Amino acid sequence: MAETSLLERLVEGLRCLPGVGPKSAQRMALHVLERDREGALRLAAVLREAVERIGHCRVCRTLTEHEVCHLCADSSRDRQVMCVVEAPADVLAIEQATGFRGQYHVLLGQLSPLDGVGPEELGLDQLEARLGEGQVTELILAMGTTVEGEVTAHYISEMARSRGIRTTRIAHGIPLGGELEYVDRGTLSHAFDGRREY
Amino acid sequence: MAETSLLERLVEGLRCLPGVGPKSAQRMALHVLERDREGALRLAAVLREAVERIGHCRVCRTLTEHEVCHLCADSSRDRQVMCVVEAPADVLAIEQATGFRGQYHVLLGQLSPLDGVGPEELGLDQLEARLGEGQVTELILAMGTTVEGEVTAHYISEMARSRGIRTTRIAHGIPLGGELEYVDRGTLSHAFDGRREY
Ligand SMILES: [Zn+2]
Ligand SMILES: [Zn+2]
Repeated sequence: MAETSLLERLVEGLRCLPGVGPKSAQRMALHVLERDREGALRLAAVLREAVERIGHCRVCRTLTEHEVCHLCADSSRDRQVMCVVEAPADVLAIEQATGFRGQYHVLLGQLSPLDGVGPEELGLDQLEARLGEGQVTELILAMGTTVEGEVTAHYISEMARSRGIRTTRIAHGIPLGGELEYVDRGTLSHAFDGRREY
Repeated sequence: MAETSLLERLVEGLRCLPGVGPKSAQRMALHVLERDREGALRLAAVLREAVERIGHCRVCRTLTEHEVCHLCADSSRDRQVMCVVEAPADVLAIEQATGFRGQYHVLLGQLSPLDGVGPEELGLDQLEARLGEGQVTELILAMGTTVEGEVTAHYISEMARSRGIRTTRIAHGIPLGGELEYVDRGTLSHAFDGRREY
């Protein structure tokens, strides 16, 4: 065949998106070129801007274009309850599904010494400092139930216990090995309300 | 809530892609920001370049960044057979699935006078001029079997007939390996009418 065409490069480029195989990438490329060039240009611009400007919140580590995210900056939120999650997607899921109005800590991973992911990579020094400020009275663990998730939960609960902070864990309905972001709202909300002493 | 965040704008931007709802747009946005910023920048660049440089082939009207697409420019292809399709996607499908080595004409639509789509919008003047060159001996109609597709096929077949060019239509019927009971009525009826000597 001839050299790679620009259309082929566009199809290839779209495959960086999760769940997009060759077939749907081709359909997407043809769709935007035939019917939505404006949308494609807007997408190109916002992709670039997002990559350039979105970083992690200095306080909770979720994704944000600000130094401190809008949740951490919101003075009306409860400073006594903090929820530990694995990923920014979990923050979004909890905000959308539950009435939780406290603080977050986003691990951006799970403890996995073999992969070089230790407490520092998960910002646990930061978390410890925040717990040390003395405002938090309950720490809600909302990570998944994988082996790494369990190890991480155990590690953090020990950290909280040593400071006399009550630790709870969300329960009921999260399928074993399931990921928070794929759980339906009702189940997630239920699990939140049904959290227990850990 | 606060003003629209950059993450929300990225999620919104991704929705210009077909088949991408709010949930998968969010998953895509978080995925590229957390795990593939390089890929996102490449996608942004190729999207912009594609929109700016990809137009329609001057000869067959398919999508290409060149004045004449690589199929029309390929002198080894058969000039006696031409296939009429509705969309660039159909060209790709035929190239990928069949041994067809002839020319194409891409309608970029279907005759639909009520929507202001007449022969000119489908490049039928161009098609007529190409047929007038006298090289084409068979015109293969490969458009869909919607009402508009039928009208378009009829119009083009008359155009070819008046020049003594043989017109054929690709067979519609039961997909290979398909079971009768799962095929829609229209297709089954069509397959029945189109039966051949066995
Ligand atoms: Zn924050
Ligand atoms: Zn062409």
